[in-house]
Amino acid sequence: MAKVIDFRTTPDQYRHWKVEYHGEIAHVIMDVDEQGGLFDGYELKLNSYDLGVDIELNDVIQRMRFEHPEVKVVLLRSGKDKVFCAGANIRMLGGAEHSHKVNFCKFTNETRNAFEAAEADSGQKYVAAVKGACAGGGYELALACNHIMLTDDSTSSVALPEVPLLAVLPGTGGLTRVTDKRKVRRDLADIFCSIEEGVKGRRAVQWRLVDEVIPNSKFDDVVIERAREFASESTKENISRGISLAPLDRSMGESEIQYTFVNVSLERKHGRAIITLKGPTDNAPVDMHEFESQGDQAYLLKLCRELEDAILHLRFNEKELGLWIFKSEGDSTKLLEHETLISSHTDHWLANEVCQYWKRTLKRIDVTSRSLAAFVENGSCFSGLLAELLFSVDRTYMMEGEFEDDDRAAATFTLTDVNFGLFPMGNGLTRLQTRFWGAEEQVDVANSLIGKPLDAEQAEEHGLVTVILDDIDWDDEVRLFMEERASFSPDAMTGMEANLRFAGPETMETRIFGRLTAWQNWIFNRPNAVGPSGALQRYGTGVRGEYDMERV
Amino acid sequence: MAKVIDFRTTPDQYRHWKVEYHGEIAHVIMDVDEQGGLFDGYELKLNSYDLGVDIELNDVIQRMRFEHPEVKVVLLRSGKDKVFCAGANIRMLGGAEHSHKVNFCKFTNETRNAFEAAEADSGQKYVAAVKGACAGGGYELALACNHIMLTDDSTSSVALPEVPLLAVLPGTGGLTRVTDKRKVRRDLADIFCSIEEGVKGRRAVQWRLVDEVIPNSKFDDVVIERAREFASESTKENISRGISLAPLDRSMGESEIQYTFVNVSLERKHGRAIITLKGPTDNAPVDMHEFESQGDQAYLLKLCRELEDAILHLRFNEKELGLWIFKSEGDSTKLLEHETLISSHTDHWLANEVCQYWKRTLKRIDVTSRSLAAFVENGSCFSGLLAELLFSVDRTYMMEGEFEDDDRAAATFTLTDVNFGLFPMGNGLTRLQTRFWGAEEQVDVANSLIGKPLDAEQAEEHGLVTVILDDIDWDDEVRLFMEERASFSPDAMTGMEANLRFAGPETMETRIFGRLTAWQNWIFNRPNAVGPSGALQRYGTGVRGEYDMERV
Repeated sequence: MAKVIDFRTTPDQYRHWKVEYHGEIAHVIMDVDEQGGLFDGYELKLNSYDLGVDIELNDVIQRMRFEHPEVKVVLLRSGKDKVFCAGANIRMLGGAEHSHKVNFCKFTNETRNAFEAAEADSGQKYVAAVKGACAGGGYELALACNHIMLTDDSTSSVALPEVPLLAVLPGTGGLTRVTDKRKVRRDLADIFCSIEEGVKGRRAVQWRLVDEVIPNSKFDDVVIERAREFASESTKENISRGISLAPLDRSMGESEIQYTFVNVSLERKHGRAIITLKGPTDNAPVDMHEFESQGDQAYLLKLCRELEDAILHLRFNEKELGLWIFKSEGDSTKLLEHETLISSHTDHWLANEVCQYWKRTLKRIDVTSRSLAAFVENGSCFSGLLAELLFSVDRTYMMEGEFEDDDRAAATFTLTDVNFGLFPMGNGLTRLQTRFWGAEEQVDVANSLIGKPLDAEQAEEHGLVTVILDDIDWDDEVRLFMEERASFSPDAMTGMEANLRFAGPETMETRIFGRLTAWQNWIFNRPNAVGPSGALQRYGTGVRGEYDMERV
Repeated sequence: MAKVIDFRTTPDQYRHWKVEYHGEIAHVIMDVDEQGGLFDGYELKLNSYDLGVDIELNDVIQRMRFEHPEVKVVLLRSGKDKVFCAGANIRMLGGAEHSHKVNFCKFTNETRNAFEAAEADSGQKYVAAVKGACAGGGYELALACNHIMLTDDSTSSVALPEVPLLAVLPGTGGLTRVTDKRKVRRDLADIFCSIEEGVKGRRAVQWRLVDEVIPNSKFDDVVIERAREFASESTKENISRGISLAPLDRSMGESEIQYTFVNVSLERKHGRAIITLKGPTDNAPVDMHEFESQGDQAYLLKLCRELEDAILHLRFNEKELGLWIFKSEGDSTKLLEHETLISSHTDHWLANEVCQYWKRTLKRIDVTSRSLAAFVENGSCFSGLLAELLFSVDRTYMMEGEFEDDDRAAATFTLTDVNFGLFPMGNGLTRLQTRFWGAEEQVDVANSLIGKPLDAEQAEEHGLVTVILDDIDWDDEVRLFMEERASFSPDAMTGMEANLRFAGPETMETRIFGRLTAWQNWIFNRPNAVGPSGALQRYGTGVRGEYDMERV
């Protein structure tokens, strides 16, 4: 599995999804090409999926929001007879490395969360119209929709057969959404997760597993009827035209990836990547009309697309780069002009979409299992929304005072309104609230600093950066930090960071990435699941897994 | 490690702790006997601990509450020069099986939580007086205290060196308490958890790692002064005399463990244990005065002690018994008379202690990694506080209607006030609130049923049991359930149950047993920690662990 995984795709390249647009209602039809697996060695039978299928789905969701803002209801359907979706492909999972399984689950989790975010943030409601078997990851897809309709026939059911069949968990949010979103009673959930064949018909409604069950003969009509109802009840503004998202330009070298506003330096020998974000070169659009006419070339949208692509690329393709350093360079004042246009027009659909996209991308950073740091150097522009990066990372180092032979502007950054609400983390708090958990008065102090460029001393005084260093110490200290980090066990880092990054309240989202993912990862290491006699290897052979029965 | 671990101990058997009682203030002095390890192959140097040390500590805490209700402040100190506590013994961890490590961490977590519960529920405040090195599990002991005092000298510091030194996590609540209890800023926590030598002096206060730092020359005086202050500020009632806890009687056979009110049948061939709780034979004491004079022979206290011992015994010594079935037999009416005395006198210190003890014991059940079921059979007495067992387990089966040749009273149980607040789970909700999460009206309905014996049909109608079965189906269905459960992968069960049991809000406690423990367990399976070149094996050899640097 050493090929480079590319997260860029376009509708004309899709092999697994068809999307039909009917005004306010879009039909997203899953019709997986059996021969279209991302890797060799398995066939994607029964609408099962691998990462390639999910990369396309992620693209569908993203385009729905930017290219099709007229859509208010997204109907998720199957293009196959008798099966809605059989979940993640088992042979793919059986053959995949531990790290691929974990990264795959993280990405699919993010995609499922994006269903829910689409309704919460943009008024696009996802509805699952389930005909045929809907099992495992298939039901987890449906669970991510905010309304589940099930046809009432002998072959249509919903199921989470992972535990009895595969000795792993329904780890893409399944267990958490069953109890916390669908609010299925825990003992019924216990039964449901223990039976391979799942639950069908009226019982599926009684147990709250689906919202409605409909006679097969009327199913298609009721689905359309329901979609129209949801669309007419929607409070989403009518937007007739979106903007299109053209393929991103990037050039990949042996030790560098270049985009327009993002540059990634791959320092493989040291196990780290340096991600540099560049400030805008052009002036901000004068109004949202001009922004809209710039479309995907508008600076803040383009920067976010490039950053997201870099994150996904590094996560999957550069697993030994365990430390990411964020840097920036550019003109803070000009950057904030771009930001202000957006942040002062969040009632404009496209400004809102750009903000929401940044929110999702910053959340991807929060759950990335790499050590993260930011270096606030002279000439940098970590202001406003880019300051969120300073509060996303595990540590921030900032240059203090004069540096010899360095004629860049002294390092400062400026907080803005957006640091106090526009980009909540998965725990529902802003990054500053999480940072100052238990010391709310420090959030108030930070708020009083809005608009003031902060130098290193001020930033440190107010707890906004971790370490400030002058010309004498900078090089040695940041080098020592990077070397130290590279010497630690990556597993211990991952566990430590996953615990330290999310102080305070938990939400369904943090439970999925915290509790559920951690247990799933543990199980993905256990011989009962992945060993030579484990359930994943034995799947399809007719022989059950052989288990060590000791409980730990 | 096949020897039977016994959780029963008495102060005269302690090898590792000294307890001095000075009126309202108790001194708990850790002075670990290097040669007193529970297993062979390691020495407990530098006040490091193993399970045996923690079994004694658990006993100290328990006796403090029952035998010494006069105590308002517990001073935790070290009996050694230059070291407070070095944490869990690394050689012990390096040599222990995965299942022992996990069980050990769970038990130590429960003991740490009991420090905090002692102040919250009984007004006994734990204070750590730290002199010398306080590292890893040593600092986690201090973190569980509600006030940490550190002496200011060159050798005294607090540290969590697990990540850099051992490639595992501070998994006994350390990471969670640093961010969520001490509210250390996340980037400072990141530094703190990355430096082997820890933090000392003024910085430890600035970073919120300790509450005060005191010059060495004044340390002992200030500690006593502070303890007196806390004692004088305490709102705890003055109780001059406790009751004593005599050793529990139990007889262990090959396939049975017998206590007075608890019987455990070990069905090894089937991988299950049947735990039967017996109702009271004697009438309830007429008042708390009589209850107090019965002391540890009072029914509800004795039953709880026996149940707790059985739980701990089975967890550690019978790991292949993956399914626990709770049964009961006895007279519900008489049981409720015993309960009423306690539940209507929660302002009496001993009634309160008995309730709090049940709360802790029920919580032990919630976090036990075994499949749990209850069988409500004819002649059973699952009423009031024993009904909590029905809502703790993963599934409940109840007998319905007449059973041939069965002259026991038909199966019923009765809810009481105690099911609606007295025994919250770790998530802060009652078990019924958790069960009906998202359907609060069902809690209200259950509340309206207080005092009415419920038969199977009624119990099912109100969602209080999972499955009801009549004479024709009972034997086959419960057998099938038990066989099915025994056929699943124990790991998948553990992960599933840990997710399904805790719907709704999370607390520091559920985060410790959920997020933190799951990550720790994952790391305990990774070669970077436990492999032949991993950090745990290499510890003390002078050679660092060799790590696979791939991030997953």
